[in-house]
Amino acid sequence: MSKKLKILLCNDDGIYAPGLAALYEQMRHVGEVTIVAPDSEQSAVGHAITLSDPLRVWNFEKNEDFFGYAVNGTPADCVKIAYWALLKEKPDLVVSGINLGSNSGINAIYSGTVSAATEGTILGIPSFAVSLTTYSNPDFRYAAKFARRLSELVIENGLPRGTFLNVNVPNVPEEKIAGAVVTRQGLANYRERFDKRVDPQNRVYYWLTGKKVEIQEDDDVDDRAILNNKVAITPLQYDLTNYSFLDELKSWDIT
Amino acid sequence: MSKKLKILLCNDDGIYAPGLAALYEQMRHVGEVTIVAPDSEQSAVGHAITLSDPLRVWNFEKNEDFFGYAVNGTPADCVKIAYWALLKEKPDLVVSGINLGSNSGINAIYSGTVSAATEGTILGIPSFAVSLTTYSNPDFRYAAKFARRLSELVIENGLPRGTFLNVNVPNVPEEKIAGAVVTRQGLANYRERFDKRVDPQNRVYYWLTGKKVEIQEDDDVDDRAILNNKVAITPLQYDLTNYSFLDELKSWDIT
Repeated sequence: MSKKLKILLCNDDGIYAPGLAALYEQMRHVGEVTIVAPDSEQSAVGHAITLSDPLRVWNFEKNEDFFGYAVNGTPADCVKIAYWALLKEKPDLVVSGINLGSNSGINAIYSGTVSAATEGTILGIPSFAVSLTTYSNPDFRYAAKFARRLSELVIENGLPRGTFLNVNVPNVPEEKIAGAVVTRQGLANYRERFDKRVDPQNRVYYWLTGKKVEIQEDDDVDDRAILNNKVAITPLQYDLTNYSFLDELKSWDIT
Repeated sequence: MSKKLKILLCNDDGIYAPGLAALYEQMRHVGEVTIVAPDSEQSAVGHAITLSDPLRVWNFEKNEDFFGYAVNGTPADCVKIAYWALLKEKPDLVVSGINLGSNSGINAIYSGTVSAATEGTILGIPSFAVSLTTYSNPDFRYAAKFARRLSELVIENGLPRGTFLNVNVPNVPEEKIAGAVVTRQGLANYRERFDKRVDPQNRVYYWLTGKKVEIQEDDDVDDRAILNNKVAITPLQYDLTNYSFLDELKSWDIT
């Protein structure tokens, strides 16, 4: 390559997160990396953006290698402000992650990590999100290497307009990874519970908790692939239209 | 109907919003309504849910007619806590709105109003979101009447699993409404700008601002329909998979 690739990294666990550092360690070999990430954890923020509060940006320097910008906003805010205000040159690639915790299946629609890739895609930049499917004893090394390899493939092949990749990597040692597969988004629900408690002031409060409902799903579903120790790569889009229902809906007596 | 319909209303402008009151005034004629809405404005929160903070719920009574629950959370939180903790019987229908401001086109993916309908759909309940496409001088009356009529059609016809309706109503007098059309989600981008300012403590902050880019779009796109004074009804889904790209992606040399 004659011109060095410009890469924007973001996440939703915040700029101090080890998953972001692991991703950076690999991505710096692919191109010139800028990090623009939330100054605090932003998990499950969905595709939120900040309209009612001002955004602030801090220069962040962990060491002479790892520096960037911390933003008091959501992942989508970070990508927007990077693109429109902070970066001198528009990025060639947006990579979001590595998230601590799965963003497969229905989690994708709640995920801040995924939303950064969505936002990159809206801005016309090839983008993908990477998540490690665990909350305990994470080992980000293989996921980071995979992200590096995938970034080269994305640059080489391109992505269709409006489409990005949602990658979920099992938290197993590299030698146990059973390959990578192209998957579709699982639609298994959560059976949720609100844990009702009473605070010291005797006031009621609730914690949301829940478990994904086990349903029979095909092997080409991301949730299943992960259970089989495969890296799941799901192409997602931000056009939410259910095209297959348009004609039936037109037959309704609406007016 | 032998059994009275159970209807859950939600919004993202908060439980005090006039759009919710206008919606309630019509929906109370369709069935037994429960209101569970954020205690404060939650615009552009996307499909956020609250995992790191406890949720609190207040009984809310504006008058003897209009009562419900206010939640210190997002629209998706409201629907979840209604379903899993507050309601004695599961609702037959979720209606979200009436939002002050358009949720057509790309706005749908940032919208808290839409996310309440998404959440209802994930829970298996027929759902739709209604927005009035203005920020000034809103007149919710026609939109509310339309929501009432549409709710009857949704109950009568049902919706495919995983699909909900995103309705955007032009803010014009009823006699100027040029009918209702089934549309697809517009994909016109925003040209954004971060307005950089300095606060009294001499610190820099930014406001996000921007305008939708004018692009040539077909008449079956929601944004266009609204410009033509038509009510736009777009069927949306929460399966984000780009199925048409699966085969090409499989041809990549990924492993």
